[in-house]
Amino acid sequence: MSTTTVLQKAAGYKAAGRVFNFGAGPAVMPLPVLEQIQQEMLNYKGTGMSVLEMSHRSAPFEEIIHQTEANIRKLYNIPSNYKVIFLQGGASLQFAMVPINLLAKDASADYIITGSWSQTAFKEAKKLGQVRAAASSESTGFDRIPAQSELQLDPKAAYLHFTSNNTIYGTEWFEEPVAPEGVPLVCDASSDILSRPLDISNYGLIYGGAQKNMGPAGLTVVIIREDLLARTPANLPAMLDYRLLSDKGSLHNTPPTFAIYATGLVTNWLLENGGLAETEKRNRAKATLLYQAIDNSQGFYKGHSQPDSRSRMNVTFRLPNENLDKTFIKEAAALGLEGIKGYRTVGGIRASIYNAFPYEGVEALASLMKTFQEKNS
Amino acid sequence: MSTTTVLQKAAGYKAAGRVFNFGAGPAVMPLPVLEQIQQEMLNYKGTGMSVLEMSHRSAPFEEIIHQTEANIRKLYNIPSNYKVIFLQGGASLQFAMVPINLLAKDASADYIITGSWSQTAFKEAKKLGQVRAAASSESTGFDRIPAQSELQLDPKAAYLHFTSNNTIYGTEWFEEPVAPEGVPLVCDASSDILSRPLDISNYGLIYGGAQKNMGPAGLTVVIIREDLLARTPANLPAMLDYRLLSDKGSLHNTPPTFAIYATGLVTNWLLENGGLAETEKRNRAKATLLYQAIDNSQGFYKGHSQPDSRSRMNVTFRLPNENLDKTFIKEAAALGLEGIKGYRTVGGIRASIYNAFPYEGVEALASLMKTFQEKNS
Repeated sequence: MSTTTVLQKAAGYKAAGRVFNFGAGPAVMPLPVLEQIQQEMLNYKGTGMSVLEMSHRSAPFEEIIHQTEANIRKLYNIPSNYKVIFLQGGASLQFAMVPINLLAKDASADYIITGSWSQTAFKEAKKLGQVRAAASSESTGFDRIPAQSELQLDPKAAYLHFTSNNTIYGTEWFEEPVAPEGVPLVCDASSDILSRPLDISNYGLIYGGAQKNMGPAGLTVVIIREDLLARTPANLPAMLDYRLLSDKGSLHNTPPTFAIYATGLVTNWLLENGGLAETEKRNRAKATLLYQAIDNSQGFYKGHSQPDSRSRMNVTFRLPNENLDKTFIKEAAALGLEGIKGYRTVGGIRASIYNAFPYEGVEALASLMKTFQEKNS
Repeated sequence: MSTTTVLQKAAGYKAAGRVFNFGAGPAVMPLPVLEQIQQEMLNYKGTGMSVLEMSHRSAPFEEIIHQTEANIRKLYNIPSNYKVIFLQGGASLQFAMVPINLLAKDASADYIITGSWSQTAFKEAKKLGQVRAAASSESTGFDRIPAQSELQLDPKAAYLHFTSNNTIYGTEWFEEPVAPEGVPLVCDASSDILSRPLDISNYGLIYGGAQKNMGPAGLTVVIIREDLLARTPANLPAMLDYRLLSDKGSLHNTPPTFAIYATGLVTNWLLENGGLAETEKRNRAKATLLYQAIDNSQGFYKGHSQPDSRSRMNVTFRLPNENLDKTFIKEAAALGLEGIKGYRTVGGIRASIYNAFPYEGVEALASLMKTFQEKNS
């Protein structure tokens, strides 16, 4: 398709009532999922009520929560010695719950600092126990993922924490760091969870907010290796206690029922579309298109991240000056390409292209990059 | 309308796809709200995206969260020296956050025990500091609200905690307990929040999960007197820190955006329907109809709660034996009267008739009580 056709098509979507939402999160959801939610809103599967109105102890909701867990287990091929827990409070609450549950008073935990969110996780943990920075890419503006050889790892650490994708800077780990023998790897995967296959047995704990790749805001998923639940200290407040919440099957209190339902539908959609292997292919194709547009621009577009650390979820770049950034954002919005303004600490452009983001929206952005450069260089 | 007509009408609703949902929570929502959510699902007010997909930092969502707060302030006529905070984790997380923020190490807090939830709040607080039971109605099966004269209050308590409505037992405080001078009153209002006008200046803090009277599960509302924020200890985990969460306008991290949106619509609906004064009238009328059915049954239906402590939110009663309870529940379900089974520790029947529960559903239940008794006594 010609550049003009692609852009006309995008503008047509906007006129018809749907934009391409490049927002970093809460983010685009699959259109068939939204349509199903709409269709089931007043009467879920003949129950005569909305999922929004349904008891979390009812048979239809038990079916929903079990199916959602089963979908996540199937997508990641999660071994049977791992628990899946549904929680609230986002990754931000996990920044505290991880050390509260896993970091004993006399122990220390290692953190790899690759961006704002890992910095925040580190600071929150520091309030609760002893922590060390095992590596940091701050000196180069968080533009890269450290090599394994750069990590200064404590062989006795309570755990090694890293952030698998850095939303703000646009970097991503494609091979997880290797922790010393016996040290559990803990991962904040909020912004690339379910975006590609993982070998879960490499991890002690993975957590992520749902609102980027999995569903709506208000749900956090924790995948934890069973033996780590033994570390939870006695007498914790119930809502901060992994062991109790896991033992109660995420039904200690009323869970965020609607967010679990929507996440169930998104994970159905992922399974129907080839699971994580196919999801990864689609995500790779989308990211490649944008990075090629950057690399073929003779320096007009400057990527923030180092080529070997480039995120497939968040593509960050700058134009030759801030005025052009602004004009670009305005022209994009006119075509229905929304939410591309970079995070304030990085500036420029950020295109978030999570699982549900359609390829044709990426084509439209790449086309705009081409025509915009022709007009403005 | 005749009893038969009322029951035929209920069965007609069921056939048309909507039941009367007497569930204790998550609970019935106003039908016009569900219809608006359905209508806006793919394209919220011309933004080209669903609220489920919308950034919490976007202008349309800022409008939503501000309007939702403004609605709650208007409904309760909240004085300007109170903050309204939107949180996650339900009342269960507040059971910990209240003492974490308000109970200093050398202080003690008073709890009034009127049911399972206040017992749980008490137990959770005990994990975190010194607490006393100021009164309990456990010896009579939590069938009543203690009189002010029964309260053994500590004049130096950090706060006095009570549960304004007891979902399981069906009792409710219509006048809040009076705390000693200078002792802030803290209220778990999860099951009667926004059900009638309150004088907020009597309270230090009110909290409630949204999923009974206000909206969907996954949102907690905290109303706190500003001066109490000074008690929050330094260096708390951010997600447990009232002061920080209030200072950030509930946007420290991604809030449960969709639940806030839905709560905004429910509070709009309450305002459009006469605010809390009219809401209270409707709730009183519904409860009266059921309590009259109990009182006029010559003992066939036995109410659990003492007459002066009867909840307008949850009407609890038993039939002459458990087999009749079961038959009654079955006949009710056939007519589209769902979710009336009592909580396992109390048994019998529980009809939860929150704000959004329609009068005609209560009429149908009262009619069934009449015809069922005629057939079975």
